[in-house]
Order: sequence, then structure tokens, then C-alpha cells
Amino acid sequence: MTDKTVADNRLLHGGDYNPDQWLDYPEILKDDLRLMKQAKTNTFTLGVFAWSALEPTEGEFQFGWLDERIDAIHKMGGRVILATPSGARPAWMSKKYPEVLRTSEKRTKMLQGGRHNHCFSSPIYREKVAIINRKLAERYGNHPALLMWHISNEFSGDCHCDFCQANFRSWLKDKYETLEKLNHAWWGPFWSHTITEWSEIESPSSIGESMVHGLNLDWKRFVTDQTIDFYKHEIVPLREISPSIPITTNFMADTHDLIPFQSLNYSEFAKHVDIVSWDCYPAWHNDWEETKDLAAKVGFINDLYRSLKQQPFLIMESTPSGVNWHDVNKTKRPGMHLLSSMQFIAHGSDSVLYFQWRKSRGSSEKFHGAVVDHDNSETNRVFQEVSAVGGALEKIAEVKGTHKQARVAIVYDWENNWALNDAQGFSDSTKQYPQTLQKHYQSFWKKDISVDIVTLNQELASYDLVIAPMLYMMSDETISKLESYVFNGGTLVSSYISGLVDDTDLAHLSGWPAPLKRIFGMEVKETDTLYPKDRNALIYNGKQYEIKDYCTIFENKEADVLATYMEDFYQGNPAVVKNSYGKGKTYFIGARTEQSFLDDLYEEIQQEVKLHTETNILHEEGVSVQTRESDDYYYFFVMNFTEQKQTIMLKESFYDLLTQETIDEHVELSPYEVMVLRKEK
Amino acid sequence: MTDKTVADNRLLHGGDYNPDQWLDYPEILKDDLRLMKQAKTNTFTLGVFAWSALEPTEGEFQFGWLDERIDAIHKMGGRVILATPSGARPAWMSKKYPEVLRTSEKRTKMLQGGRHNHCFSSPIYREKVAIINRKLAERYGNHPALLMWHISNEFSGDCHCDFCQANFRSWLKDKYETLEKLNHAWWGPFWSHTITEWSEIESPSSIGESMVHGLNLDWKRFVTDQTIDFYKHEIVPLREISPSIPITTNFMADTHDLIPFQSLNYSEFAKHVDIVSWDCYPAWHNDWEETKDLAAKVGFINDLYRSLKQQPFLIMESTPSGVNWHDVNKTKRPGMHLLSSMQFIAHGSDSVLYFQWRKSRGSSEKFHGAVVDHDNSETNRVFQEVSAVGGALEKIAEVKGTHKQARVAIVYDWENNWALNDAQGFSDSTKQYPQTLQKHYQSFWKKDISVDIVTLNQELASYDLVIAPMLYMMSDETISKLESYVFNGGTLVSSYISGLVDDTDLAHLSGWPAPLKRIFGMEVKETDTLYPKDRNALIYNGKQYEIKDYCTIFENKEADVLATYMEDFYQGNPAVVKNSYGKGKTYFIGARTEQSFLDDLYEEIQQEVKLHTETNILHEEGVSVQTRESDDYYYFFVMNFTEQKQTIMLKESFYDLLTQETIDEHVELSPYEVMVLRKEK
Amino acid sequence: MTDKTVADNRLLHGGDYNPDQWLDYPEILKDDLRLMKQAKTNTFTLGVFAWSALEPTEGEFQFGWLDERIDAIHKMGGRVILATPSGARPAWMSKKYPEVLRTSEKRTKMLQGGRHNHCFSSPIYREKVAIINRKLAERYGNHPALLMWHISNEFSGDCHCDFCQANFRSWLKDKYETLEKLNHAWWGPFWSHTITEWSEIESPSSIGESMVHGLNLDWKRFVTDQTIDFYKHEIVPLREISPSIPITTNFMADTHDLIPFQSLNYSEFAKHVDIVSWDCYPAWHNDWEETKDLAAKVGFINDLYRSLKQQPFLIMESTPSGVNWHDVNKTKRPGMHLLSSMQFIAHGSDSVLYFQWRKSRGSSEKFHGAVVDHDNSETNRVFQEVSAVGGALEKIAEVKGTHKQARVAIVYDWENNWALNDAQGFSDSTKQYPQTLQKHYQSFWKKDISVDIVTLNQELASYDLVIAPMLYMMSDETISKLESYVFNGGTLVSSYISGLVDDTDLAHLSGWPAPLKRIFGMEVKETDTLYPKDRNALIYNGKQYEIKDYCTIFENKEADVLATYMEDFYQGNPAVVKNSYGKGKTYFIGARTEQSFLDDLYEEIQQEVKLHTETNILHEEGVSVQTRESDDYYYFFVMNFTEQKQTIMLKESFYDLLTQETIDEHVELSPYEVMVLRKEK
Ligand SMILES: [Zn+2]
Ligand SMILES: [Zn+2]
Ligand SMILES: [Zn+2]
Repeated sequence: MTDKTVADNRLLHGGDYNPDQWLDYPEILKDDLRLMKQAKTNTFTLGVFAWSALEPTEGEFQFGWLDERIDAIHKMGGRVILATPSGARPAWMSKKYPEVLRTSEKRTKMLQGGRHNHCFSSPIYREKVAIINRKLAERYGNHPALLMWHISNEFSGDCHCDFCQANFRSWLKDKYETLEKLNHAWWGPFWSHTITEWSEIESPSSIGESMVHGLNLDWKRFVTDQTIDFYKHEIVPLREISPSIPITTNFMADTHDLIPFQSLNYSEFAKHVDIVSWDCYPAWHNDWEETKDLAAKVGFINDLYRSLKQQPFLIMESTPSGVNWHDVNKTKRPGMHLLSSMQFIAHGSDSVLYFQWRKSRGSSEKFHGAVVDHDNSETNRVFQEVSAVGGALEKIAEVKGTHKQARVAIVYDWENNWALNDAQGFSDSTKQYPQTLQKHYQSFWKKDISVDIVTLNQELASYDLVIAPMLYMMSDETISKLESYVFNGGTLVSSYISGLVDDTDLAHLSGWPAPLKRIFGMEVKETDTLYPKDRNALIYNGKQYEIKDYCTIFENKEADVLATYMEDFYQGNPAVVKNSYGKGKTYFIGARTEQSFLDDLYEEIQQEVKLHTETNILHEEGVSVQTRESDDYYYFFVMNFTEQKQTIMLKESFYDLLTQETIDEHVELSPYEVMVLRKEK
Repeated sequence: MTDKTVADNRLLHGGDYNPDQWLDYPEILKDDLRLMKQAKTNTFTLGVFAWSALEPTEGEFQFGWLDERIDAIHKMGGRVILATPSGARPAWMSKKYPEVLRTSEKRTKMLQGGRHNHCFSSPIYREKVAIINRKLAERYGNHPALLMWHISNEFSGDCHCDFCQANFRSWLKDKYETLEKLNHAWWGPFWSHTITEWSEIESPSSIGESMVHGLNLDWKRFVTDQTIDFYKHEIVPLREISPSIPITTNFMADTHDLIPFQSLNYSEFAKHVDIVSWDCYPAWHNDWEETKDLAAKVGFINDLYRSLKQQPFLIMESTPSGVNWHDVNKTKRPGMHLLSSMQFIAHGSDSVLYFQWRKSRGSSEKFHGAVVDHDNSETNRVFQEVSAVGGALEKIAEVKGTHKQARVAIVYDWENNWALNDAQGFSDSTKQYPQTLQKHYQSFWKKDISVDIVTLNQELASYDLVIAPMLYMMSDETISKLESYVFNGGTLVSSYISGLVDDTDLAHLSGWPAPLKRIFGMEVKETDTLYPKDRNALIYNGKQYEIKDYCTIFENKEADVLATYMEDFYQGNPAVVKNSYGKGKTYFIGARTEQSFLDDLYEEIQQEVKLHTETNILHEEGVSVQTRESDDYYYFFVMNFTEQKQTIMLKESFYDLLTQETIDEHVELSPYEVMVLRKEK
Repeated sequence: MTDKTVADNRLLHGGDYNPDQWLDYPEILKDDLRLMKQAKTNTFTLGVFAWSALEPTEGEFQFGWLDERIDAIHKMGGRVILATPSGARPAWMSKKYPEVLRTSEKRTKMLQGGRHNHCFSSPIYREKVAIINRKLAERYGNHPALLMWHISNEFSGDCHCDFCQANFRSWLKDKYETLEKLNHAWWGPFWSHTITEWSEIESPSSIGESMVHGLNLDWKRFVTDQTIDFYKHEIVPLREISPSIPITTNFMADTHDLIPFQSLNYSEFAKHVDIVSWDCYPAWHNDWEETKDLAAKVGFINDLYRSLKQQPFLIMESTPSGVNWHDVNKTKRPGMHLLSSMQFIAHGSDSVLYFQWRKSRGSSEKFHGAVVDHDNSETNRVFQEVSAVGGALEKIAEVKGTHKQARVAIVYDWENNWALNDAQGFSDSTKQYPQTLQKHYQSFWKKDISVDIVTLNQELASYDLVIAPMLYMMSDETISKLESYVFNGGTLVSSYISGLVDDTDLAHLSGWPAPLKRIFGMEVKETDTLYPKDRNALIYNGKQYEIKDYCTIFENKEADVLATYMEDFYQGNPAVVKNSYGKGKTYFIGARTEQSFLDDLYEEIQQEVKLHTETNILHEEGVSVQTRESDDYYYFFVMNFTEQKQTIMLKESFYDLLTQETIDEHVELSPYEVMVLRKEK
């Protein structure tokens, strides 16, 4: 855990602020300050994409407008998160130094445009970033309004230029030392792909090599490391000049399923930021899922990003209404903005920040939701809902810095996702590793049981239950870690398509690894991949559950059979088994089942492990209760993620922070209503 | 209106004729003349794509074959539309002067091939075009058979070469004068996209800049202007040598919905042609819509192209059977060819011309419908149907040059379509600006009420009713024009997604423009974009109508509420309002409704504005009556666009031009049958 | 027929063996030999993709590992098929000689990677291939284990580099001699595409010319010829040094419909191999068709590849379980492996060979089915099923070299497929030439009637019935051949979209060719292309059958009308006609019908031609009986392609080769069970 925290005792409320777009509109700049107070906001992120305003021509800097804005915000009692501008370049730089532009995987040099399109290796780009970052640090690093540094914006993408090829080769030399080792890891002789000189190595390409899985995997690892390296380059002057100011960069999710961002391994990146922050844009009110199902996914991803550092995180961006980049950009219904904002806090965020404070007048994001609309008015619905969130955050300010405690961990591994998505032999459209984990998570979310989503870097011993489904790629170290966890008394759940390859994506020799056979009490023999319309079923505790996509055929050794297959040539064979190993227990789920099977199996496991909620708050499905706790108090966020009224049964009395009343017995929650209840420990 | 008209008193019948493909087949060339007479054709377009036949090697011209054909047609009593050959280049030119080839938006130099693939900026291409056009003008400009010049063919596409980049920058300099103004219009600081040198500007590209909406819009405007400039370059020698010969170029539609061609702004292009002509290829008998619904769309687009110059236009291409480039190339059912040909005349065309006279033997268009099939026979069904059209055109020749009069105008704005399609914040798949206008049009088509489809360049004062839905982009000038129109007594209808941005695609400051608030008596607050499966409804005159895609939430000030929402958080809010302003009235339709709502609302408006048809011809849905009129006569085209017999009630007697009999009372129309009825004024 | 045959009296069982991937694993190499015996395998293909193992750096060769393996296999009694390694290059070659890399149709130079990506024209690549092939021939050409040469692997693809453009132009000069002839064939004047210098010719490209159908067709022909030319270059040293060893290269199919490979004309390629071999990967147990329908398709394609040389062929690759490259990679159900392996033999294969002997540890094919799994175990299900196939092949070894006799031929023409797929004027999604032929084939497969699938190169006189549907492209020679076949007593069936163009894809002048009118007794007038949801029907023998996609309208002259249309403007017109011509008969099927019509019509034709099966084995649909025969015996393969038990009625007694018992009367076949019954002639 970092020693740097957000030096403000308020829950942060505010967001991305781009006065650089409005320098010709002094009346707008003036209105901003007035409206900021009315919206009960306190924190603004400045400087994102402001490079052309800060350095309009090479070497000539204009900080006056930024000085003025920061001072004005400070005077108002607000705080500033200051961004480095490297997320987009001025046009003059691309023109004069084309090397700063990215080269695509097809080896095409890109033109100036868009954003996030710089080569992370370019010496000139690094030099230009170092200069502007140092200027910013020198000028604002000790400004009393400065709360945090925000590095670049939503790092992503890769570059295939000669600089990057050279860096990739160096990275590989560091990793493998010899070509012999590299060729072994990449299974070189396959299709004559043996490398005989380091210079023969090229990054994966659709016009060249795309089928060497070891190369693909190493390239993704390299891209993460290279991006972190660029980030580390960015923060040098900031750390030097403002050593006490925490540094973050905003992480993302992939849509439209709202799964963790896949292109960068955030479990590595998280080590280098002081505070995890991220940008969350669920497609509320969509037409393909129920609100409660989406809410569980939002819970999952927040719990993952919280667990990366096991400390409160920040929502760096969210929208008060709709966005502009979904397929359909529907506005949040009344109440949803408060509910969804409180959900962030409930899962451990210490902020509700927005992209964006004010809608642009022009270009592609002018209809992205914002606190202030083009009408510049505080009377409209969205502004009112934002102000209500501001009010609520003030009332619950005491939750700032409090923690979540979980006895259950679900393992999420970015590299496993990369390797599994690359694997040929199953079915591309049904792999869905992150989505599958979200389904396991949902069985706990429904019961208000706190869950950490952990990576393989983290310790497992403190958890009563560890869930690691579809862990296709398991290094020997991982296998040992899991064995040791179970041996010492832990309960482990795994599933189909687990334990097939090592960390270089080479199949384990001699079939399914011996330690896995030991801990699960059986041996995996075959994985049957089903066509989309194929169905099987399993029977468990006398009840039948539908199966699709995947069925593992295994040979039981000493495990207890919990469920058996009902169809196909493995009819009657075990589908789910339970085993005892050392002081611990394991469960292996052989097939992809409907959600209700997971719910029912985990009900059994929860009883076995004696997991229960601490909440004393009873409700129907669709209501979620999430808990934060300080040394003295529990804080229960009771959230109605349904379009119906919900009756909540309180088995004891609580203090309601929002209404500031003590309540007990029955409470009725309107659609999308939220309560924040406090209880002494 | 131009002073140049088609100097022939016949309705033109004939089409594209490519003898250059058959120079080795003298018997075919001979047969052509015989068959032309039998098909009752009189006009042929020669020279389209004939460059390699006219100038087989650089600077060596061969006109003999063309002399012979033109003379032969002339001798037969036919007329010639002569095309300039610039729609495709000979291979020798691409080989010797690669600069004539286009560069794609990905900055790839294209190879020789296809057609419409030349750089409009290339000095050499312009020089070569000037030479051949002058040769053609000198040789044929005063030939008595020459009826019209046909410039190139179906202009389209763009080029991103260095010549074109330079021309684009010049065009921008002319428009903006300073980079400061350009940066303001393009909202430069957004994503640091400020331009500091003119040379930094590049045309939009998927490998560079694609998100600066002002740039995208200006590029499309530039492409239209550049294409017109090329056209103007083409016509210099023609005007000089044959000043009395009218000049046209053939416009197009986009498919498969049959909407106006989107890539060029024809409202600008139309100013530069003497006569508007276009190529119309509806997918008759398809499996996704009824014949009558497609017929209404065909009506819309013909009325648009007619309204561009408010004078008769020409159908330059159509097919007597099927085409070769639809997804499914189904042949016209018996009767449809006469019906659909008469529909062109009914909406103001003075021609029925075909692509193509004779099917090619080879290459990609050899199965495109033609008057003469590979069997070279006059006995086949298609040839017979073409001859019947020829006969009908002779019988109704007196309608040539007559006009349509409309009291209703629907506003179609090409630039609005560009800007709206680029807008992010709604839903790309449901924008459908042209299709939406076609639905409004259909409410009038069903009632035989003539409609002009006008652009914002045109005067509105003469119309009793102006309909301008989804006019997302409104300049201050447009807003004033609309306000003034209403103030002076006009009736204006608008709808959701109107009035959001100005003509540089910048959002109007202070929200919805004040003049719009005034004339509509309310203020637009939010536009709710729905997911595809979402439905709402409105209630109007006690009847309920389904809503999808878009709902405007507005705050009523002084308007009358005609309809209210039935669902969602704006249930009970106004959905459609009516207002009085000055001497005029306005209607605002807040949501996308089913067709029947438009029909019913426009029924009310038609009564209010006292619109009624002049026809005295009663019929069921699916029959369309379109009117042309001369100083002395009305001509009613009564067309059965159904697969059933239809009974027509005539409230007075008419002279039937096709049967040459006077008819009254009941008439029965067979499926696809058409009558042309004349009535004295 | 070649004079070179496979010099081993066993049915070949084994497959691709890649010890070069396992040279660091001596225990694996040792296990291989033990397991090979256990699996009852006898033949292994070595050297595919082994170039980097054989020549790790330029000019330094390492044959030791291959010596050892070949000797070990020989010692075990096994045989070796030795591959030339040209299917993939070592990285050093691409690095040093970039010319060996392909250039895409977009004129992009590809990078090293993948496989099958070399330029067939590159002088250096040809030189390098010549060197390594000579080394292999010198070292192993007279090894007693060597059974056959296997050239490269699955030839495919094309290259558009300057070398290849030059070769293409030479090929065209050889074919056309003058540009005048070429321009006529390509219908040059269309769109001004006349060629005036040979150097102007470029291969088809999506960034250049793609619409000149004659060019497209010639390019495909050239690519076949160029690939064969490369193949012929490869075999020079092999023929020279080991003249008695037969040479093959492995052909392919296209998926997922399992149709003949379309990119190369195998009817040309087959002339140059001694034995046809191919790689067969049906998607058994899929969710879009029944097992029996897929089985019929597998029958079709095996009969096609058998008919190419009218002699037994080899299955060079197949999978014992699943593959890794289908959309869904489902494993074969128990029994299917034996059944599907026997089906190969039943249709004329003398082998069951696998890709692959052992699963790779790494890269993209590590989950492709193999005899030996990662568990290196002989106890798993797949290994056991392979061993059972090995046992069965030993029991039926006497069928090796026996033939199939057919009195029915279906004409399959690769060039027709190319031309038809390029044709514009029908509907791209419904052309389906190969699939349509498979439906005709199915009517015979259901009745156990042997069919040859022949090309237009082959003699027809020996067949009682020739079926040539959708033969869009017919040269004058083909038309004469068909006329002569009928005149001399043959029975010919053809269908819609036949006889429209000649062999340069030029439409026949004067409409449908006169000889076709003569033999079919009618004249084709129009082809009506239907939209996907459109349906028509025909009535035949009092029964109604559904029609979709295509309806031919023809004018009957003297044919007997067998069926008429029930709908649309050609209602009552003939849909299917029968005619007598000379000593023969013809049938013309005007529309695309449901399968049951083909079954019923062919029932009538089978009776007329007196086709009947020789089997005396009665069964329900889904069971297939295929016959091979020697001078003395018939061998009947009785195969149950259903998931149900099937009762088989034997009208005489047979010797069952698998059970080695004589059987008669009723026999019950389990799902997927197969019998091989022998009967004396
Ligand atoms: Zn780079
Ligand atoms: Zn250009
Ligand atoms: Zn090449």
C-alpha cells in the first residue's frame, strides 16, 4: 500500500474541466465558478488534452489561463487534479517530428489525429513530455489546490515502429537471454518458425506472424511493460518536485459487456500508481439485460479495481446522463444518477467525478453527458441530479477512507485472458472468461457477501474461499500456490478449461498437472466444446440445470460426485466434484451451467465455509447491500436496482445518513432509491 | 431557371448506347438501327466510357465510328446526347501519368481499374479532359442530332493526394481567412487539435483524423465544390463552341432504401447544370416492403430532383428489367415497366431513358437489364414492354414541358444529413434523416397532394406548409428564414433533433435557440435516445400511437399540447405541440412515431391549411394520382401500385390519353395499370 | 492413370509426424515408437514444415535427426511419406531475401510469418527449394522405408509482386498472342478498359481492377498454372533421383459447407500428381445439419477427388477427434471415428492418415486433435478409437487397390464455379454451385448408387446418365460434347443458369446456344432471381414442391412438360421438361427446388435408365451402402449415419470382414456402426 493518500477529507465530487476550450468566452468561465458551487462540486481535473493550449508552438508556453483557473478554484475552496497533457499532441509536433506518430500493426505510419496515438518509444516524444511535465511540476507542484497528478489519459494501444521493434527485442533478450530458450517457449520448430537471429523477430502482425501464441503473449506483456515505462518516464519530474502529491492514471473498462480493460495488465500497472482510479460507463437502461444484472457487473469491476491495491479507489470519470460513444446513448432515468454514484462509494470509491464538467461546443464529444449543458443552466434535470449527488456526498463524507473486508476472493488474471482468447481449439465466441467470472461473482452479490477480485500476485491465505474458474494458464508457481492454499485449510473452486498450459502457453506435459489431480481428486481427460444450439444438463441435489458451451469429461479418483451429466456419451459421468485435501476442500465445476446452478452450489459452499452477511438487512433479489467499515462503524449501502418498489426488512435499528434519522423494521425503497445506513461495531 | 431547354418536342425515349463495344460486329450495329425504330426510341447517349475508343493511344483520335453512328441515328430521326468520356481513363494514361490516379483516404495510391477513379485536381488529367472535350465539341457541337451534353458519368468519390490536400487548404483559406477562425469553427483545443500552420491540415482519414466534425463537414463541402469545379472545367470548350446546347450530368440515388445520393450536395451542383437528370433504380418487387411504399419513396426522390431547378427533369438511366448490382437482381413483373416509366413522367420527367440499349457481351454489366438482350431479338418480353412504353410516350407527348405546382414543401438539406450522420450522442443505426423525410412525404403522397422537396437555398414564402423535420443543423440565417416564414403566415412543422448546432456544427450557445423557442412556444430540454427494443407511445385525439428511437423532452411555454407521452419518466409530458406565432402556425413532433400518426396529424394540418387535391379521382390506398399541368390542362397520372385490381371513382369526366377515350364514373385498374387523364382548366 | 502406385500392400494408417518439435525430449521420441505400434499405425509423413530443422542457417544442413527417425520407423516395419519443406520458410531466408515473401492483392509486401506465404515466381525461393529438395532426394530417395513424396503442403494463395506480374503477362501472351484477342476476350472497350501495351496489365486488385471478368478468370487460371509450375519445379530432383517413388501433394476442401477447394483447379493439378491425396475435416455433430446430410457431402467430395484420376486415392489428413480451426471444435462422438474412417475407404481411399500423430506443446495447433494427446497416454478414449481403426484396417486390407464403378456422372467444373461466382446479375448469396451439385448427388447417395464426379476433361460416353446443373459457362467444345453424348444415346440432366457464356465469360451471341435448344427441345428466355423470402412452387406428378432463388422462364418447342410453375407471371409455364434427341434423352430443371423434388425426379430417371443398386441390402434413410470391387469380389460398406439403431435387411448372405462371420437376414446396426460385407462376383 502506498503512503500517499488524497489530502482532502471530503468525498471528491467534480470532474474533467476544460477551460482551454472556452478561453474566448469569459462569461462562460465566470459562470463555471458559480455553477460549481451550486452543483456542490469540489474537485476538478485540468489539463487533460491541453498541450496545444499550454505549448501552442514549440518551446513557447502559456500558463496564464491555467494559473487563473487553478487560483479561482482554490479561492472557491476547490481542489485540482492536474493532468499531464501527453494523451494528445499538438499538430506542430507531428509535423516536425513524424517519429512521434504510431505505426500500426500493418506497419502503416499513422497521420496526426485522434488521441492516444503516440509512440511510447520515440525519444523525441519522451523528451517533449519530460519538458512539459517538468514545467507543470515546477509551476503547480506546490500549489495548495493541487490534490493529485493525473498522468496522460486512458493509456492504451501499441506501436510497431522500428524503435518499438528494437525495444521489444531488448525486452525479449532480458527475459530469455538466449534464442534457444525463446524458441522453446515459442515452440519455434512449429511451421519452421525458429528464430536464428534476434533481428528476425517482429511484433505480431496480420500481414506477418499472428499464430505464434508465445510471441503474441510476450508482445502483450511487453506492451504493458512499455506503457508502464512511459508512465514512469512521465512521473520523474513530478516525484522530484512534488514528492508528497499522489499520482494516478485513469484505468478503463471494455464494453459493451462492461468487463475489465483487456489490452493492459492493470495488476502490473497498479503497482506503479499511488491510487487506483478509473472511468466507469455502464449502459444503464439498455435493452439486453436487467438493471440488477448490470449492477452486479459494475460491482464486479469496482471490486476488482479496489482489490488491486486493497484500498479505496477513485472514480475518475463517469457521466451524469448519457455518453456519446455507446451504440445507443440513452440518458439516465431520474434517480439512477444518485443510485449509480452511491454504488461507486459502496464498493470503495472515495469519489464521484465526471467526464465532463461542461459539454464542448464542437467536435465529437459535444453531446457526451456533462454537469453543465449547452444551455449553461442550473435548472435542468441533469444539473439538479448532480447537485443532489453533491448533497448526498456531503452527508456521507465520514465513509471516506473506510474499507471493505472480504473473506471470498475470485481470481482474475489478465494474462490468462490473453492466452485463453488466443487459444485455438475451443470456440472463440464462447470463451468469455471475464463474463464467466462475473457470473460467479453474481452468486455472492445477490447475497450481499463482500468479494475481493484478486490477481495471482496477491496472497490467498487470508480468504476462506478462493474461486478460480477457467484458469487455462497456470504456471508451476500458481499450481503450488493453489495447492498450498488448499492444503492449509482453504476452500478452492475451479472449473472447465483450467490448468491446461504453463505461463509460456505451452501445454503441460503428461496431461493435467499432478498437483491438480491431487487437490481435486480426479483427472481431466477431455474438454468437449459444444455448438451454440447444443444443450446438455446436469443433475445436482435432485434438480436439473441446463449446460451449454463446455463440458469437461473427467475420471474421478477419490472426489465426491456432486452432479452428473444427463446427456451425450458421458451421460452419468461426474460433472461437478468435491474433494478434501490436507485441511482444505476443493470443488470442480466441469461444465458451463445456467446461473441458478452457480447460485445453488455456492449456497452449499457458503454454508460449509460459514459465510454469511453481517447486515441484518433482508430484501428481495435486485436489491444490493454493500458494506464499508471503519474502526467504529459499519456503513451499509442499500440499493434498489429494480424498477419496482422494494420492501426492506431491518432486523435491528440503523442510522440513515441521508435522511439523518434512525430507522428500523420495514422500509420501502422506491425504484432506484438508495439508503446509507450506519451501525456501530 | 436556365434558358436552355431540350430542343425536341418528343418525350425522350432511348438510353445509353455503346457501339464502341461492338465495332467488330457490323451486323449488330446494323440491327441496332432496325431495333431502335421497333422499340419506338428516339434518343441515345453515346460516348460514355468511350475514351479508349476515341483516343486509343495518346494524341491519336478515332472519331470515324462515332461519326457514322451519330449520322445513322440522325438519319433515322433520332437525337443524340453526347457524353464526355472522363468517367474512365484509358490504361495508357494511368501508366504514363500515375498522378491521374486517385489516392485513397488511407493515403494509398490506387491502381488503374474500375471507373470514377481520377484525381479531380490532377493538372494532367484536366489537360487531357480539356483536349478530348474540345475535340468532341469541335466535331459534334453543331451536329443537328446533338440534343444535349452529358458530362462524365455519375460523379462521385474523393481523392487525398498532395494536389488535393493543397486545394483543400486553399479552399479553407478562402473560407476562414485566418487559422484563428478555422480553429474556432473546428473547436481546435478539443483533444489538442489546434492548427498552427495551414500545412498541418490533412483531409479526414481513418489512419489520422476522423473525429473533428468541423473538418469532416468542410471536407465534404470541399469535395462537392471540387467536383463542381472539375465539371466547370469540363464544360469550358462545350459552352464556347456550342453555346445553345444544354449541359447536364447524371445524378444518382443511394440504395437500398432509395434515398438521395449523399456524397455530393446536389443543391449546389444543380446550380451549374442546365437540366437536372438522374439515374433511378428502385428494387421493385423486393421482399422487405410493399410496392406502394417503395413507390412513395420513388416519388419523393423524383420530387426532390425536380424541385432542385423547379422545372422538368430527365430520367437519364433506368432499367427495362433488372439490374446487376443489387443484392438480388429480380426482373420487373409484366406491367411494372410501363407503370414505373409513367411514374417518372408523372413527377416531372420529360424522358424515359435506359441504361442500357444493348447488353454487353462481357465484363461486369453483361447481365444488367437492357432493351436488347443477348438474343438480339425483338420478340422477347422485355423488348415488347419497352416498345409499349415508346408507344405510350408518343400518345402523351403533350405533357412534355408541363409543370407541377405544390403548396407544400419538405426541406431536404444535404449538409444537415452529413452533420447529423457524423454526430455522436444519438444512435448511428437510427438516425435515418432521409428515410424520415420520406415518411413525412408519404402522408401527402397517399392523398395525391403535390409536394416540393426544397433545399434551404430556396424561397419558402410561396408555400402554405413547410415541413422541416430533424433539421439538426440550423445556421442563424436558417432560423431567421423559418421565423420570418412563420411570422408572415406560414405553417411550419419540425421535429425531434432539430436546431441543435449551427452551420459549423457548433452547438448553439444557451441551449435551444431563442427564435425557435418563440415560434414553437416551448423549449427543448433533452433528447432521449431509445434502444432498438424500447417502445413508448403517445396519445393524440384519444388514439394511441407507438414511438421508438427518439423522444424529445420539452418544457411547454405557450403552445397547445396535441399529444402526450404515455410511458417512462416523461409520461404525461407533451409529445407534440402546436403554436401560433405572428400570422403563422407551427407544429413540433417530439418523437419518432409510426406512420399512422403522421398520416393523422397531417390530416388535421391539411384541413387547417385547406390543402386538398384538385383531382376529383377517388381511390383506395396504393393508388397514386400525380398531376402535371400546362396553361390549359391538368394531366392526372393514375397509377395502381398494388398487386390487386383497384376501382377508381371519377367525379367528373376525363380524356384518357392512352386509350384516347373519354371516361367517367367507375374505372377498374388492373394490377400495375396506369391511366393518363386530361382535364381542361 | 499413372504407372506409379503405393508400394505397400497395407491400407495406410498413420499420419503427420513432427519429431522436429521434440528433439529436446528424447523420452517422447522413444514413446512415439512404442505408441505407434500400439495404435496399429504403419505410415508417417515427415518433414512437413521442417525446413528450419533441416537447414537452421543458410547452407548448413542437419539431417541426423531425420535419419534416425526414418530408420527407427523402418525398423519397426513402418513406411515414410517424405515431405518437401517448402510450405514454410525459415526466418533467415525472409530476412536475407525479402523477395521470397508474398505481395498481397493490395500490393502490400507481407512480413515473415504464418505459412504458404512464398512467392511462387521468386528465383531465389525456387533456387532454395531446388537445393533442399535435391538434398532430400539424394539422402532418402532410395531409402527402403520411403513410400511416397509429399510436395510442400496444401498449396494455396497467390502473389502480386513484380515477378508474378511479369509471369502473368507472359502467360497471357502465350494464350492470346495479340492484345486484340485479349481485348476481345476481356471485352476491353467496356469502361474504357482496352489494353494498349502488355505492360499495362495488372493482376486483379481491390485497389485497382476487379470488375473485368475475363481478367479475373484468367488470373485464377494463371494462379493454378503457376502453382503447378512451382510444383513441377519442386519435383525435378525427386523424379531424377527416385524415379519409381510416386509423388503427391495434399489437396483440400473449403468449409464450412465442405465443398471442393475453390482457389485452385484440381482437375488440372491432378494431371501432375501420381496419386491424388487430400485432407478431409467434416464438422461432425454440428448444429446446423443432420449427420446423414453431412455424410452425403463427404461422399460427394471423396467421389470427386477419386474421379480425378479414376483410381484409389489417399486421405492424407483427417482428425481422430476435433480440429482447432473450425468455429466450434467439437470432438467426435464414440464410434464416429471408425465410421468416418471407413467412409473414406468406402469411397475409394486406400488410407486413413491423420494430422497429427502427436499434439504440439505450443503455438496455434496444440489443441488440434491427434493420436497422442499431451498426456502421452495410450489409455485415453481417442487413442483407443484410433487403435480400433488400425485393427479394422488390417481386417479389411484386401480392399486395397480395388475400384468403384459408376454409371452416373455429375459434372463439376472449377472454372464454371469461378465464372459463376463472379457473375453479376443473379444473387451472390444464392449461387451455391457446389452445394447445388451436392444436392443432386444426395438423390443417388440415398439409394446406394455409385456416382463419379467428373470434370469436363473426362470422357462421358461410358456413363448412362450425366448430370450437369448450373453449368453457366459452356465453351462451344463443351456444348458439342454434350450434344454428341446425348445424340449417341446418353441421358443428360441440366438446370437453370446453364449455357449462358463461353469459356472467356462472354455471353453467347444470339441468346441460348442453338445446340442446347436442339437437345433440350426448348429455349431459355429469362432467369428470374428471387429475393430470399420469395417462394414459388411447381407441380409434378400431381405433387407440389417448393421453389426458391431461381426460376427459368423458357419457351417450349418440342419437349414434354414434366412440371409447371404454380405462381407468378409465369404460372402454368413449364418448369421442368424432358426431351428426346438422337438416341438419347434430356431433362431440364428450370428452378431451384426442395430436395424431395430432386429425389422424386431422379427416381423416375433411375427407372428410365435402369439404374439400380447391386447390393441386395435394404435399409432406411441415413444408412449408406458404398461399393468397392475387385476382379473377384464386391465389398459393401454398410454405414449407419444416424443416432438411432437401424435394421438392415440382407437379401442374401455376406461375409463380414470385421467380425469374420457370415451373416444374412436381419442385422441391427448401432448408431454410427459400420459393417464391411464381401460377396463373390
Ligand atoms: Zn513506436
Ligand atoms: Zn488528388
Ligand atoms: Zn510474387
